[in-house]
Amino acid sequence: MKFATLKNDKRDGQLVVVSRDLRHCVPVPAIATTLQAALDDWETVAPQLARIAAALEAGEAPEAQPFDQAACHSPLPRAYQWADGSAYINHVELVRKARNAEVPASFYNDPLMYQGGSDRFVGPRDPIDALSEEWGIDLEAEVAVVTGDVPMGATPEEAAGAIRLVMLVNDVSLRNLIPNELAKGFGFFQSKPASAFSPVAVTPDELGDAWQDNKVRLPLRVDLNGKPFGRPNAGEDMTFSFAQLVAHAAKTRELGAGTIIGSGTVSNKQGSLHGSSVENGGVGYCCLAEVRMYETIEGGAPQTPFLRFGDTVRIEMQDAEGASIFGTIDQVVRRYPGRA
Amino acid sequence: MKFATLKNDKRDGQLVVVSRDLRHCVPVPAIATTLQAALDDWETVAPQLARIAAALEAGEAPEAQPFDQAACHSPLPRAYQWADGSAYINHVELVRKARNAEVPASFYNDPLMYQGGSDRFVGPRDPIDALSEEWGIDLEAEVAVVTGDVPMGATPEEAAGAIRLVMLVNDVSLRNLIPNELAKGFGFFQSKPASAFSPVAVTPDELGDAWQDNKVRLPLRVDLNGKPFGRPNAGEDMTFSFAQLVAHAAKTRELGAGTIIGSGTVSNKQGSLHGSSVENGGVGYCCLAEVRMYETIEGGAPQTPFLRFGDTVRIEMQDAEGASIFGTIDQVVRRYPGRA
Repeated sequence: MKFATLKNDKRDGQLVVVSRDLRHCVPVPAIATTLQAALDDWETVAPQLARIAAALEAGEAPEAQPFDQAACHSPLPRAYQWADGSAYINHVELVRKARNAEVPASFYNDPLMYQGGSDRFVGPRDPIDALSEEWGIDLEAEVAVVTGDVPMGATPEEAAGAIRLVMLVNDVSLRNLIPNELAKGFGFFQSKPASAFSPVAVTPDELGDAWQDNKVRLPLRVDLNGKPFGRPNAGEDMTFSFAQLVAHAAKTRELGAGTIIGSGTVSNKQGSLHGSSVENGGVGYCCLAEVRMYETIEGGAPQTPFLRFGDTVRIEMQDAEGASIFGTIDQVVRRYPGRA
Repeated sequence: MKFATLKNDKRDGQLVVVSRDLRHCVPVPAIATTLQAALDDWETVAPQLARIAAALEAGEAPEAQPFDQAACHSPLPRAYQWADGSAYINHVELVRKARNAEVPASFYNDPLMYQGGSDRFVGPRDPIDALSEEWGIDLEAEVAVVTGDVPMGATPEEAAGAIRLVMLVNDVSLRNLIPNELAKGFGFFQSKPASAFSPVAVTPDELGDAWQDNKVRLPLRVDLNGKPFGRPNAGEDMTFSFAQLVAHAAKTRELGAGTIIGSGTVSNKQGSLHGSSVENGGVGYCCLAEVRMYETIEGGAPQTPFLRFGDTVRIEMQDAEGASIFGTIDQVVRRYPGRA
């Protein structure tokens, strides 16, 4: 099944079931008005939603309407939990290498994860708002899962069974605020503004063979200002699967239905190199910080600037036939209009 | 106005308006079924709730029923955001002094704040569940506010105007997991399990003269296993007001209605000493870590153990006449029953 949330006059929008080809959708107010409501009561609701999805695929849903990605919120416009892992250790290795430091051995068996803000996501076509370019605005293209309820101390196997949905995310980071904030010792806060998620969230079975070992084995397609920027395979070099990330999150507490767990910036090793651009035949990058680290390692200093007002970011994933699975995140960086 | 959320068969419970003396309450399903729903639409809903509250005080609410704190969830059983400051710098000074380190000068004008988990709070009378006593289970008695929508870059004055409710919180911490987790650099995650909030949340005007400069100038009353443990005044030694904490949280992003911002562990300086127990005539402590730091400074090593299964924690605040304002958090530490 595929789901989206259409914007309306409510904070949580309107849940719709979306066709596999993303061309049509069906509102399902009689089953669940919002995606959170569906997740809260998944065992009861999922079979009903599956019947609607089957009817939609068969062209037998009378309430079907054209599906417009531009009318979408993030699938969960706000959530009770958003926690982001850092499962692609290549990214961490690069950070360390750029400052001549070792990656601690524990990082290979104990996931890095931070608690993110989830009170107000932005939509997949909404601007990335900031008050200043000096904050060092960066994209981070990632995959994320949405869980059902997870008991405290769940094993990775139990965690795998609680994965309800998969989606893409742009976890915006304010790079120039990170060093001072992390130095204070309490993790990210001001350096992580609102994230945006793909228009469509899908059940893992929609990924077919690409969903293996709780990883998505497909390239993530990231464009910057209309040019290919990243094409890394999200199934490669992922040190921790989503099952392991969810189990990590549940080690000391129960997770509530609708918890979103992110993969961290997707990053492939590319042979002996730590990365090379799409232009040069590599798979490129999913964040600007990574290019800058690569430039620092190669030439002593970063060359590529962070995002400026007016820059655009596009994130998508296609199946083996080239069809868009989740729709596209397509955002422009904008000076926040809420302040003079 | 005073509000509580009664447990029912829904995840978000049933909003009730509570009388000032905490003896009666009125469900208000025709106005708002949940506290989050009321906060989402506060401008419209608050005047209606105020009429119910006035009728309840006047003994003219026909739907009034006895109010039972034991039937309560946390006012928001789950929330879209829970961020906890560390506004009582005495606590930070103690931590540093116990390890012979200086407090960075920036800590006196840039608040410490971490993003907490908010997907599943526990009720004020629910157990503190853990899988192991070896985690170093600790209480942290604090004050917290709930906000409406706050724009990015809000000033402290604007932030003050967005404070809707005040409540108490027990921000449970797993002390023995903190050093390794913070060393990883991404802040707290596994070391911060589910928090519990007071049965009742109140609008700031209910605090009368005790609400000054966006601080609550009353003693917080903390008992451990039935004995007085802490009586510090929450209005003293609070380096950052709630207005400053909310503005800090909103520096780079909008805050959604229902955001909870905590004060951090309440901690008073007590003259030249960094603290002394209630038994010895001091105002005591709001967490065990603080006693242990004091013991470390005085005697070289901590003596007081962290919480054990069966230990009880009680947190309350009384007005000048000795009446309970928020009801009491009253929890027992328990081995999590969800695992064999």
